[in-house]
Amino acid sequence: MREVFRNELDELATQLVDMSTKVLDSIRLANQAVQNNDLDLAERVIEADADIDAMQHTLDQQAAEILALQAPVAADLRAVIGALRMSASLERMGDLARHIAQQVRIRYPESAIPQHFSGTFARMGDAAEKIAEATVNLLSNPGLSMVPTINAIDEELDELHLSVFAKLADAPAEDLAPRHIADVTLLSRYYERFGDHAVSVSQKVEYLLTGNWEPYLSRK
Amino acid sequence: MREVFRNELDELATQLVDMSTKVLDSIRLANQAVQNNDLDLAERVIEADADIDAMQHTLDQQAAEILALQAPVAADLRAVIGALRMSASLERMGDLARHIAQQVRIRYPESAIPQHFSGTFARMGDAAEKIAEATVNLLSNPGLSMVPTINAIDEELDELHLSVFAKLADAPAEDLAPRHIADVTLLSRYYERFGDHAVSVSQKVEYLLTGNWEPYLSRK
Repeated sequence: MREVFRNELDELATQLVDMSTKVLDSIRLANQAVQNNDLDLAERVIEADADIDAMQHTLDQQAAEILALQAPVAADLRAVIGALRMSASLERMGDLARHIAQQVRIRYPESAIPQHFSGTFARMGDAAEKIAEATVNLLSNPGLSMVPTINAIDEELDELHLSVFAKLADAPAEDLAPRHIADVTLLSRYYERFGDHAVSVSQKVEYLLTGNWEPYLSRK
Repeated sequence: MREVFRNELDELATQLVDMSTKVLDSIRLANQAVQNNDLDLAERVIEADADIDAMQHTLDQQAAEILALQAPVAADLRAVIGALRMSASLERMGDLARHIAQQVRIRYPESAIPQHFSGTFARMGDAAEKIAEATVNLLSNPGLSMVPTINAIDEELDELHLSVFAKLADAPAEDLAPRHIADVTLLSRYYERFGDHAVSVSQKVEYLLTGNWEPYLSRK
């Protein structure tokens, strides 16, 4: 009986790794789609998001069954609650990759990124990929060694997000159509939120390993 | 023993009502702050968000204790999982009210809403208040009667959000500075997301009452 239970918990952990790997794929393709204005790639990201949603659905159902049938306590209970929370964050990261791809589709054949901003969004895309990779690592290997990396990349994303507004404020109005400014604002917001959710996942891993909610609260 | 357990579940339900009431207060004040460009009010909303975060923290700890000590099953288990999910959505609604207030502070003494958009944001603010009221009702009175109301207001918010972009596309570039367009884009997105989270809460109430995840998935 206990072995069945351990296998079930391991299965949840494996599903979280699978979800995060799928999120990494999505953000990589979304970055390529937005940087190369590639509509086909954008469509692929939009379609693939349904798979991530389905993975969350499966994981959540299994977590609920474990709670019902095994009535876990202490660290095991934390693992199941943590899995429920992390699946919600990973699902949102998938949504945000989809939102980025949708901006490409909305603006096509025009580019969603005005040339003036291509460098900034290349850096944002790079940071988003790195934070998604770090999230896969965090979930694949027990331990907190990835937490500082994730926090540092999130700060980089926050700074890039602020730099977009500084750049918008400096740009002469005649260089940018209102729709371009709206695109840039939304895209920047999506990348920034993508980082926030990776931080949420890492905070939940901290909670899982320490039982302490404080890091979760302290960064609010 | 069972009576203690029932009281604990009732206590979770009461806390969700309290959280939603606090969210309603915040969005009301945030609307006034943004519509009247009132910095003091904006500061109050920003400060009050810490209370909503603390309420979520308390609720989640109690839910985890109930899972650990009572090992609920079936409908009771769904209630506890549902409470954990709903507290996360309500906490995000509080964050979004704070984000709206922060836009007032960032742009002050200038208004965050260009005059051209004041009518649209008055309607968005009104819809956000109504959806927050409906959420309080939903959580106060068992049943699904509020669900169609919440979905209808959410659709109204989505339409208003799209109308903002249509209006931006039509606006002559010289009428709007880039910072105004960025403000309008973000504010509109915050209101739209506020509605999405109310829908999430109502979907969780459906799950709670029916055990069925499908409405949750079907609206993804």
